[in-house]
Amino acid sequence: MAELKNDRFLRALLKQPVDATPVWMMRQAGRYLPEYRATRAQAGDFMGLCTNPELACEVTLQPLDRYPSLDAAILFSDILTIPDAMGLGLYFETGEGPKFKKSVTNAADIEALPVVNPQQDLPYVLDAVSTIRRELNGRVPLIGFTGSPWTLATYMVEGGSSKDYRRTKALMYNDPEVFQLLIDKLVESITAYLNGQIKAGAQAVQIFDSWGGALSHSAYQEYSLKPMQRIIDGLIKENEGRQVPVILFTKGGGQWLEVMANSGATALGLDWTTDIAQARARVGDKVALQGNMDPSILYAKPERIREEVAAVLAGYGKGSGHVFNLGHGITPEVDPAHAGAFIESVHELSAQYHQ
Amino acid sequence: MAELKNDRFLRALLKQPVDATPVWMMRQAGRYLPEYRATRAQAGDFMGLCTNPELACEVTLQPLDRYPSLDAAILFSDILTIPDAMGLGLYFETGEGPKFKKSVTNAADIEALPVVNPQQDLPYVLDAVSTIRRELNGRVPLIGFTGSPWTLATYMVEGGSSKDYRRTKALMYNDPEVFQLLIDKLVESITAYLNGQIKAGAQAVQIFDSWGGALSHSAYQEYSLKPMQRIIDGLIKENEGRQVPVILFTKGGGQWLEVMANSGATALGLDWTTDIAQARARVGDKVALQGNMDPSILYAKPERIREEVAAVLAGYGKGSGHVFNLGHGITPEVDPAHAGAFIESVHELSAQYHQ
Repeated sequence: MAELKNDRFLRALLKQPVDATPVWMMRQAGRYLPEYRATRAQAGDFMGLCTNPELACEVTLQPLDRYPSLDAAILFSDILTIPDAMGLGLYFETGEGPKFKKSVTNAADIEALPVVNPQQDLPYVLDAVSTIRRELNGRVPLIGFTGSPWTLATYMVEGGSSKDYRRTKALMYNDPEVFQLLIDKLVESITAYLNGQIKAGAQAVQIFDSWGGALSHSAYQEYSLKPMQRIIDGLIKENEGRQVPVILFTKGGGQWLEVMANSGATALGLDWTTDIAQARARVGDKVALQGNMDPSILYAKPERIREEVAAVLAGYGKGSGHVFNLGHGITPEVDPAHAGAFIESVHELSAQYHQ
Repeated sequence: MAELKNDRFLRALLKQPVDATPVWMMRQAGRYLPEYRATRAQAGDFMGLCTNPELACEVTLQPLDRYPSLDAAILFSDILTIPDAMGLGLYFETGEGPKFKKSVTNAADIEALPVVNPQQDLPYVLDAVSTIRRELNGRVPLIGFTGSPWTLATYMVEGGSSKDYRRTKALMYNDPEVFQLLIDKLVESITAYLNGQIKAGAQAVQIFDSWGGALSHSAYQEYSLKPMQRIIDGLIKENEGRQVPVILFTKGGGQWLEVMANSGATALGLDWTTDIAQARARVGDKVALQGNMDPSILYAKPERIREEVAAVLAGYGKGSGHVFNLGHGITPEVDPAHAGAFIESVHELSAQYHQ
């Protein structure tokens, strides 16, 4: 593998000194970019893009070509590849979000689910990782990712997106043993999946717990955090002579940072509702922090974006341990020039905190 | 006015001793009840029900007749009566949520908006309040309510419901003075509206800040909490010889309880993501707490519901200052018998905390 030319992102996750705060954006390869929309049109549809390693590589690199100051690449894929590989039949209807042909609703459905073997069942993802690593050629590190067990379980039980996770919660509250079996199969599958990504070249991994924030304090710990801890425990700790950091991002999890900081994760992702200064005080030296500007600020004028970047940087304060990001994915309506203003301002305004 | 026979709810809000923890449910007059669906069918549609004081009274009393242990009634109305009275033209499309015929998108739209005079513009709400008070005949106290300025502003700018409040946040970030004018008009209108409800007979009021949780820490304080504080400052403090408590409920506001506790509110509503024991420790003696069982637990078996009620009661612990509620409104799919099991268990299991 080519030597890593920019390791600011990996160093910040490990709280090692950096010259500026590293920055990347969740969903940075996405619909706000005209070049992404062109490649996606070429692929036919979203899953066509995910399952084609060359095209997945192409869209992964597009934001890096447009914004040379980005400090990390993230694998282009979807969090629902695992349930798809379990046989549920993922598809996307325009404007409707993800859907499954089959959902799991009872003990028999869940007992019948296979555990995923990523080498056999998801070779296109591992191929995409190694292709991207080769094409990156050491430019920046590559992030692998997965959805959390709880988050994947909601899609599998509901058969797609949901507003209040009614069926999933009914199963969880009424049939905790059956629900736990689903979680256990996801823990085993996801652990193998992330380890497969790491072996294929992912230099850090992020667990997207998109819907953990819909749980009560106690249900979060039992059904979302504990399974994520088990995954983290099972991950390859070091590869290519470097530690492989793990970023845990529970959207809506700002109330639970203290318990999340004890999960074994290297860093916690913060959404924009959390004050980063308070978050740093609450987690102490246990973990690094990633985040957390409101993605909606990218609709504002570049001057306003810079002000907000400055405020988040000042909130975190001096020293390493901060990876700048949005508090959630960048949205399709954002002007790419505004994203550029955001990215540039992070490096420019953060140098003072690293002297 | 008839003497109040059950003042457990008002006493708990003021942290005065009670014999059991009072309970009510947000959206207790709602679609999960067959008798509600029958009255609504008679009214024609949802707004027909809101604007007819006799029918609004009828549905307000239905849950009290079915569940004699409920400790409060809440005015049946909608949070969007204020923007409707400002001339935006509220309507409901089946399965689509609320919509406005006109939205406000720029300075001229906002400058043209009138401030609402509830006696002239919303007489049907004030009539409903006085009708309900008369029909309650002192059984339990009546709660009046409003949406928060930020929450109403999102509907007015988006023209209805929204996922990410894109237009509202763009206006707020790009044109803070224009957005502030909208907030100011809402503060003035809402203050008059709640005072109108109090004069008509509401014995407590709740501010529903349904979408405050979508804001960043600093934007929440500026555009949601500060306007709510101004409303609270302007409210009638005492009526009929009793203090009129104010409940502030920001859904998704669990990270901000300390600042909310300094707002002048008598009590804070908690959604189910907040641990009530931690919340009590954080707010100290400043405010009472209302909440906070996950409404989805009502899909579970009655035994499971009782367990969860016991856990929330144990979390709050001994002494007054807790009003039991769900962490959000009861959903249409809940079995009314499960709601009954919930309500009964609160009184039964809470007596031990008030000896």
